[in-house]
Amino acid sequence: MNVTVGRCTRPYRTVAFDARKNAVRLIDQRLLPHKFQIVAARNFLETARAIHEMIVRGAGAIGATAAYGLAQAIRAFRGRDLEKLSLHVDSVYQTLQAARPTAVDPVNAMNEVRSRMSQGKTVAEQQALALTAAEEFANDDVRHCEAIGRQGEPLIQDGMRILTHCNAGWLAFVDVGTATAPLYAAQAQGKTIHVFCDETRPRSQGAMLTAWELAQQGISHEIIADNAAGHLMQRGEIDLVIVGSDRTLGRTGEVTNKIGTYTKAVLAERHHIPFYVAIPLSTIDWRLASGRDIPIEERDEREVLGTWGIVSNQKLQRRNQKSSRRVYVRVANPTSRARNPGFDVTPPELITGIITPEGIFKPGELWSHRRKLGYAAFS
Amino acid sequence: MNVTVGRCTRPYRTVAFDARKNAVRLIDQRLLPHKFQIVAARNFLETARAIHEMIVRGAGAIGATAAYGLAQAIRAFRGRDLEKLSLHVDSVYQTLQAARPTAVDPVNAMNEVRSRMSQGKTVAEQQALALTAAEEFANDDVRHCEAIGRQGEPLIQDGMRILTHCNAGWLAFVDVGTATAPLYAAQAQGKTIHVFCDETRPRSQGAMLTAWELAQQGISHEIIADNAAGHLMQRGEIDLVIVGSDRTLGRTGEVTNKIGTYTKAVLAERHHIPFYVAIPLSTIDWRLASGRDIPIEERDEREVLGTWGIVSNQKLQRRNQKSSRRVYVRVANPTSRARNPGFDVTPPELITGIITPEGIFKPGELWSHRRKLGYAAFS
Repeated sequence: MNVTVGRCTRPYRTVAFDARKNAVRLIDQRLLPHKFQIVAARNFLETARAIHEMIVRGAGAIGATAAYGLAQAIRAFRGRDLEKLSLHVDSVYQTLQAARPTAVDPVNAMNEVRSRMSQGKTVAEQQALALTAAEEFANDDVRHCEAIGRQGEPLIQDGMRILTHCNAGWLAFVDVGTATAPLYAAQAQGKTIHVFCDETRPRSQGAMLTAWELAQQGISHEIIADNAAGHLMQRGEIDLVIVGSDRTLGRTGEVTNKIGTYTKAVLAERHHIPFYVAIPLSTIDWRLASGRDIPIEERDEREVLGTWGIVSNQKLQRRNQKSSRRVYVRVANPTSRARNPGFDVTPPELITGIITPEGIFKPGELWSHRRKLGYAAFS
Repeated sequence: MNVTVGRCTRPYRTVAFDARKNAVRLIDQRLLPHKFQIVAARNFLETARAIHEMIVRGAGAIGATAAYGLAQAIRAFRGRDLEKLSLHVDSVYQTLQAARPTAVDPVNAMNEVRSRMSQGKTVAEQQALALTAAEEFANDDVRHCEAIGRQGEPLIQDGMRILTHCNAGWLAFVDVGTATAPLYAAQAQGKTIHVFCDETRPRSQGAMLTAWELAQQGISHEIIADNAAGHLMQRGEIDLVIVGSDRTLGRTGEVTNKIGTYTKAVLAERHHIPFYVAIPLSTIDWRLASGRDIPIEERDEREVLGTWGIVSNQKLQRRNQKSSRRVYVRVANPTSRARNPGFDVTPPELITGIITPEGIFKPGELWSHRRKLGYAAFS
């Protein structure tokens, strides 16, 4: 992606490695869209903290960050004892995994690094191989997203108005993103599109991250309240919906994604609007046999009861030097509580197709194409 | 309603008249839920400003406020010349109507006051009749809402979990409210219920006003993001939906209400959950023949791009004396724009029934019951 900082436009990856400084370079996503800042995690503990504190978030992005973090720790190892290095790796692995314990991408990524380094016969060789494996994981993430873009691009016709929910863009991956990949590919083909970004309460990733990404890409877009999509569909203003996924069941085709995704799928079906889900292969869960078995995370109620933003009251700004920092404001009645489920499950009958790097499939077809779709690697 | 202020619980109406001081007393709804404050509008210009600035909002509430404002101006008239009083009334009428020009309730309410006062033979008699007419309009508003409560109460079974959207409670009327009336009636019958309040972005009336009302009433409730209702329905956690309406078409049964209402109706139909709309008769539009003809107000994009709330950052609070005042925070990407439709239209096939003071009707039945439903008065 190309990000304009000051007057200079440069390509950035969400996650990158600085081999000279042995540091993991991350876009600090907690500061977006109000501030673009690259953070350097200088050792694996800082890298683990960056994952834990959600400086970096999103399936592919935290996978690559964990892989780099492991390679970083291996490269920082001093000595020639392969046994000691192996013990060091075990400990680092556990620390990085514990940073986001429910995510599967860091595990897959670090397994890749560990398996590859074991081919080295000296500490120096293992150090070099670890970094190569991490770099390849990151490059594969980009390639898979680009492949999703190629597969999905023909769905997008010139002039289409597309709805997306939450952020499944390049900020959630190393680059390109999943739901956004077909949009960027269509733009590269010279197609003109307009994107409606669902605000995506309670964390507002659509308004904060997807809108920021699309602005950086120069794609025409508008933010809407989550309540407004139904009205726009009713008035014929939405032609296509594309979303990402946090976990898609390979056996049933059920799609877990950010809360509110299911609602958009129900609305799209009523209005005969195609509803696509874009996913990398690592997002497919080949084990679970029912969406009912997917644990739905209940998050902190403060996300619903208020919001974080930049104070724009000028008097407040003048008095307060930290005015460019985000503050939390309470919106709701102070004596009321909130429920805050983080995800929902969309059943296969509402999904037109699942866009993968290997092609577009009906949700019910995933299982019969499981060999092609990485069943062996991720089962 | 009973509102607890400090340690004292007292009954309040959203709109009331203080005859001794010739003042209209209003709950300042701009300060809720963070502060409960009664504002006294001491002359008709202050009353007009209170309507215009949305200190008072909601169909029935602004109708009663306009009626009181007109009576207030008539009572302040000095002299014995009926001709001069009549000219004065014309001018006040126009000022109060212009405060919210698209609303129909203030017009109906003030016509009532003007028609009644004309029966008086002296200025003093007309002054007394004007206040009586305004009081009756306010009392009728309460009675109609109570009748909605009686009609709707049998729909609510003990233990039910009910979803509502936006605020159609007593804050939008003189008292009791419409969508909330059956809930309060069920509570009075000793039924235990739990209410889910949709946050209702972008203006968050559910989180701010409905949650506050329910807390005052002691009704068990939780606020949810607008995105979460579909998930809760899917998991069987919602038994009934009741909403209000800003305009219901008597000829077709189409219901205009706060943006997002249509989405809840679509979800409710999919899950076979009854979806009811509670309305006073003055909300029925007998003229329009299609929901397509209802103009949908596009509101200020700042409502979507950010929100108003109370800063809870303690450092900020210490530095800033005005910390209990609401501030606007920008949430969205600063270079992005937003679309902000304020209402949507729900078609009759998604509506189980319309709860009126005269009974519960299928949306398609309104026209055949038009005499009973005030067709002559409001057509």
